[in-house]
Amino acid sequence: MKITELVLTPVAFSDPPLLNAMGVHEPFALRGVLEMVCEDGVIGLGESYGDLAFLDQVRKVIPALPGLDVFDLPGLRRRVARALGDAVFADEHGLTGGFSVSKTLASVYSLFEVAALDAQGRCLGRPVVDLLGGRARDAVDFSAYLFYKYGAHVGAAEDSWGEVLTPEALVGEARRMVDEYGFGSIKLKGGVLPPQQEVEGVLALAEAFGSHPLRIDPNAAWTPETSFDVAEKLEGVLEYLEDPTPGIEGMARVAERASMPLATNMCVVRFADVAPAFRAGAVGVVLSDHHFWGGLRDTQALSVTCETFGVGLSMHSNSHLGISLAAMVHVAAATPHLTYACDTHWPWKAADVIEPGALEFREGAVAVPDGPGLGVVLDRDALAKAHEDYVRCGQTKRDDVTYMRRFVPDFEPNTARW
Amino acid sequence: MKITELVLTPVAFSDPPLLNAMGVHEPFALRGVLEMVCEDGVIGLGESYGDLAFLDQVRKVIPALPGLDVFDLPGLRRRVARALGDAVFADEHGLTGGFSVSKTLASVYSLFEVAALDAQGRCLGRPVVDLLGGRARDAVDFSAYLFYKYGAHVGAAEDSWGEVLTPEALVGEARRMVDEYGFGSIKLKGGVLPPQQEVEGVLALAEAFGSHPLRIDPNAAWTPETSFDVAEKLEGVLEYLEDPTPGIEGMARVAERASMPLATNMCVVRFADVAPAFRAGAVGVVLSDHHFWGGLRDTQALSVTCETFGVGLSMHSNSHLGISLAAMVHVAAATPHLTYACDTHWPWKAADVIEPGALEFREGAVAVPDGPGLGVVLDRDALAKAHEDYVRCGQTKRDDVTYMRRFVPDFEPNTARW
Repeated sequence: MKITELVLTPVAFSDPPLLNAMGVHEPFALRGVLEMVCEDGVIGLGESYGDLAFLDQVRKVIPALPGLDVFDLPGLRRRVARALGDAVFADEHGLTGGFSVSKTLASVYSLFEVAALDAQGRCLGRPVVDLLGGRARDAVDFSAYLFYKYGAHVGAAEDSWGEVLTPEALVGEARRMVDEYGFGSIKLKGGVLPPQQEVEGVLALAEAFGSHPLRIDPNAAWTPETSFDVAEKLEGVLEYLEDPTPGIEGMARVAERASMPLATNMCVVRFADVAPAFRAGAVGVVLSDHHFWGGLRDTQALSVTCETFGVGLSMHSNSHLGISLAAMVHVAAATPHLTYACDTHWPWKAADVIEPGALEFREGAVAVPDGPGLGVVLDRDALAKAHEDYVRCGQTKRDDVTYMRRFVPDFEPNTARW
Repeated sequence: MKITELVLTPVAFSDPPLLNAMGVHEPFALRGVLEMVCEDGVIGLGESYGDLAFLDQVRKVIPALPGLDVFDLPGLRRRVARALGDAVFADEHGLTGGFSVSKTLASVYSLFEVAALDAQGRCLGRPVVDLLGGRARDAVDFSAYLFYKYGAHVGAAEDSWGEVLTPEALVGEARRMVDEYGFGSIKLKGGVLPPQQEVEGVLALAEAFGSHPLRIDPNAAWTPETSFDVAEKLEGVLEYLEDPTPGIEGMARVAERASMPLATNMCVVRFADVAPAFRAGAVGVVLSDHHFWGGLRDTQALSVTCETFGVGLSMHSNSHLGISLAAMVHVAAATPHLTYACDTHWPWKAADVIEPGALEFREGAVAVPDGPGLGVVLDRDALAKAHEDYVRCGQTKRDDVTYMRRFVPDFEPNTARW
């Protein structure tokens, strides 16, 4: 079944003012939605970053794909590689590690691979999970993803979550999220407040949610010394400590002394990082993300490599819509070695581009959709609205730093500054 | 599509008196042929070892599988694991490394996984290669697999290959095999003659086939010191040196000084061996074998792990029939990181259980069969004949040692004896 046409639609959707080490989320999050049209009218869907610098790379690839058999994934990868040459996509927020030719190829390929797998599944009448080796689990556990946040965007009214900058407010945010979605574990995005305050936030969560495994992710905002200190204070409280400090070497120093495993989606972000990080004992958990690990099949391969070396696997998330959530659910369901609940930004978004109903959270988990392919259906009106929002908002990249300076004029991103 | 019935047929086929470190091949090689019957009458095929000790493990699993969805490979693995418990299958020849619960599970699961993938492909009307991610290559290169050999089995007339115990006879054997199959690389099974004689054999091959990459595999019959010596004498001649000496530690000692990469299908035979072997720098090439690495999907996962750590991948072979060759071709075609021509015993067998035509060697390579699933069709008359041979020959295991003593009464297997 040959690919005949590709349609890329940039979209934007409202995002609250969530804080992280690089600043604060802008009023809109951007995504790119891909429709891979094949013979017989089958359409495969993909979703990834919406930054213009990324979309530009995707657009270089599109003319090279018509005529390709949608089952020929190695051929797809070759065509993507040829079209990209030695291009490097570097996002502005810097929250998913370094940039490289191989990571750019993996990221752009992933968007097309997901759409191709969706098309394959639709063509064959089977869910994508079956094309990935079948269901290791019927539903995938996700974690509540807490953020410190401002109460309102610049010039806007306060959102329903309000300001969250204290332990009490954090517990309130967690309570609402756990009540609404049933999450069984909780992650806090840190790197925002001085470390001692974030420790107090985690301890307040531990007190309020005794049986929920907890994590904190300061996006490498701490020095190794601060990381030891936090690890010591949160011993027995955290299931893992995520990216406390930058780089494989720094992580290895912290790992040597921390009692809990260290997780990363910043110092191990491509296969070339795996051997040095594993040899150095720098990480106990890799946070996979099919959007930059080369798609669903490579995410599974990463899992086996992790299992082989006794390293755990969980899943990283950026702000995303339903196509990406469906892809995450299918690959997670088909991956036996997935040792922790996955991250998702799902509760923070108000709109989507898919028809509702296919993806529901029950007790913090999403069941694998039943339909063929990814099992989600594009809502064309919603897509048009989200594209309209993209055009109107005028954002072309994620830039948390610049937006943060509207709140804190002298703000500088936190790279191991504490 | 549910599995309704499983039929296991042990078969035997004539095998020449091929020599190795453990002795000599008996007059018949044994295999087990599995038919996985599914709803709608789809039948998936699998092939693996025919030793009774292996078939007994397979028979323990068979009653547990009817009713299972043929797409539920994780469920298949769970049922296989439950049925096997902590059973360990230990073959008698000892040429594929140690035995363990995990290797036994991987071996038994593999037989069923291949049949399930064949059934999936037939159900979907797609070749297995497409279920494994598509064609990284359209045809798979194989290597000529030379053996020192006796001219005839005990009490039998000389076979068409005759006795091969000298460099001249070895070159003659290679010439015939290269002429008939077009192989572009050559492997010699060593560990049979004193090492210096085998070095002379390889040097004669190098002189006669200058452009063909060469390998020798003494099945760990040498000490590390002898291995250094051979490596030095064959510097610039071998593309890799396979299992010169036993164990990860011994291999690591040799690897430190040898100029060519060391390959293995003896010291890395399950995922648990990978980390210690890679950390020790013991191997430069893993010889995968889906029959004991947990099937086609795990073989692909092994490949990514190897690629991640800068280790090459090739493919090991035992005596096999067409179902196994088809499985090898599909997985090799779908595996981008396959860095050497694969091994096969194909030229040494006279009969098969599949209809001819699907698998042809051209210039040493086998094109991926076009049909759905594995693309091979069972020849029921040939299967009946091969099962008759199994019953008549009375062999129930591969035992090269005992048979060797009919030629050399005081023979002892060679484990690093040189």
